Amino acid sequence: MSKKSKRSDKSAISGQMAAKTDAKKTKKEAPKATEHAAIVTAPETVVVPEPPPDPDYPRYRVEAGKNLKLAEINPNESEHYQSKADVKEELEKQRQRISSLQERLYAERRQSLLIVLQAMDTGGKDGTIRGVFQGVNPQGCQVSSFKAPSTEELEHDFLWRYHNKAPQRGIISIFNRSHYEDVLIVRVKQMISEDIWRYRYHAINEFEHMLTLNNTTVLKFFLYISKDEQKRRLESRLKDPSKHWKFSSNDLKERVFWDQYHVAFEDAINNCSTEYAPWYVVPANKKWYRNLVIARTIADTLEAMNPQYPAAEAGLENIVVPD
Amino acid sequence: MSKKSKRSDKSAISGQMAAKTDAKKTKKEAPKATEHAAIVTAPETVVVPEPPPDPDYPRYRVEAGKNLKLAEINPNESEHYQSKADVKEELEKQRQRISSLQERLYAERRQSLLIVLQAMDTGGKDGTIRGVFQGVNPQGCQVSSFKAPSTEELEHDFLWRYHNKAPQRGIISIFNRSHYEDVLIVRVKQMISEDIWRYRYHAINEFEHMLTLNNTTVLKFFLYISKDEQKRRLESRLKDPSKHWKFSSNDLKERVFWDQYHVAFEDAINNCSTEYAPWYVVPANKKWYRNLVIARTIADTLEAMNPQYPAAEAGLENIVVPD
Repeated sequence: MSKKSKRSDKSAISGQMAAKTDAKKTKKEAPKATEHAAIVTAPETVVVPEPPPDPDYPRYRVEAGKNLKLAEINPNESEHYQSKADVKEELEKQRQRISSLQERLYAERRQSLLIVLQAMDTGGKDGTIRGVFQGVNPQGCQVSSFKAPSTEELEHDFLWRYHNKAPQRGIISIFNRSHYEDVLIVRVKQMISEDIWRYRYHAINEFEHMLTLNNTTVLKFFLYISKDEQKRRLESRLKDPSKHWKFSSNDLKERVFWDQYHVAFEDAINNCSTEYAPWYVVPANKKWYRNLVIARTIADTLEAMNPQYPAAEAGLENIVVPD
Repeated sequence: MSKKSKRSDKSAISGQMAAKTDAKKTKKEAPKATEHAAIVTAPETVVVPEPPPDPDYPRYRVEAGKNLKLAEINPNESEHYQSKADVKEELEKQRQRISSLQERLYAERRQSLLIVLQAMDTGGKDGTIRGVFQGVNPQGCQVSSFKAPSTEELEHDFLWRYHNKAPQRGIISIFNRSHYEDVLIVRVKQMISEDIWRYRYHAINEFEHMLTLNNTTVLKFFLYISKDEQKRRLESRLKDPSKHWKFSSNDLKERVFWDQYHVAFEDAINNCSTEYAPWYVVPANKKWYRNLVIARTIADTLEAMNPQYPAAEAGLENIVVPD
């Protein structure tokens, strides 16, 4: 990728931020110094993060402003790889990279990584977590699965429960489903009106922007399977007694809305793939290829975040440990 | 171990519970049916859990009522094993067992496991999590590290922040430090009076009892290192530049209180090692042996919990997936 284009992206964001902080000043809201890690108020402390780096395989990243059509993507794609065995070594290498970079991220306690996983039912969110993260130290890795909201959650704004699970410094946080459910299922099932879900794209972008300004890198993956692949997966759960417990007849009810979900996904991706928090649409019919692409993207991103072990206390050379 | 003695333990607990629920009845507090998983109120729903099973190596378990003296335990012990290489295969086997039992626990969504790790500084809590749990699916495993309490936490009772992190059904929750800090450091540093820390043993036992009555199995490990092993570890952090960032001169300040901490640990273990939530004092000078003992104990415990994949929906055989 070109370093130059990255720079210009960055200054574009800087300009935007400068405009915002100027607006604040005229309102005479003097920013107060605060120790709180999650809120950046003082203009002088605003550090505009580098946009997430191009991974080696950026073709699955949805560039901001691009009008993506899912139909243009082949969910069966797997580059030159033919089978799980073909990617075994490469996947193991990427998992090792994630594991060792995560150790540095945790020690550094300065940045964090938020990974959003979305997919149609049977799309492989659970399998991705197992396949990519099994081997990462659980101390630095937190998975939040979002199901139907509780009564308490429904009595707050839609971002409240997700914000609560945003990663603290040093942590990789994985959202198994996410705030995007609030522009997907609620739109398809017509639980909210169009003006509300349209507004939410904006609210989501602002939320993710604020996270990135606080050293949280945001990666969003849509695991893209085809409709007949979903059929195969549901049938395999029906046929194989060891998978019976995974089968939910609710998945069949949702399947009826396949096309509506795809429109909602396209809109969400097109409206919320930003320079600072890009969406990746990952061909996911082949589970092993999906895992490889995601592992590679995460490892490359962590490498570009370049976490460092913290500096030592001053004067270590003179310290003697008493008996 | 004798099956018989287990049975009698169990009926002793049953008796205790029966007495309690009787007391409730006389107070006319009619228990209300509730869907909430975390609270058992109705006597008829009280299921007294089996006490955690004896692992293959029960000699590190502190039997309830035993007056343990730490001095009786050899922190250098490692059975017949001489080196890390000796335990490699066995440790890998135990980790595999944990990983596959965890998968069933997660699918079952009926029980959970709470693992408490306590140790003196440099005792190996972080290393244990990495060494035992790296390889477990992070989706089913949650680590909570408890540091100095926040202002908000201090404005609640001492158990509040720990209760909040109790494992939900299906989850293995690891406490890196725990509610036991509230009878350790606060006692040694004389932040609270003796009547308060003595009362807390009781409060802790009641808290853990309630968890076990809600299908949470509780395992508590004290990683026991010797004072000169701590010296070696601190010196190695000073000598090795790659470990400099781990060195905190605060550890030296705490080391001065070594003996007072040991008295506090002995008291906490003796007062809070119960049939339903036992303490294990694990020889921890040899990191590889410590990991083996803990992995083995956890795997045996999970096996005895015997999690099962949930039953399938009725009528699966007649379902056809539409195109």
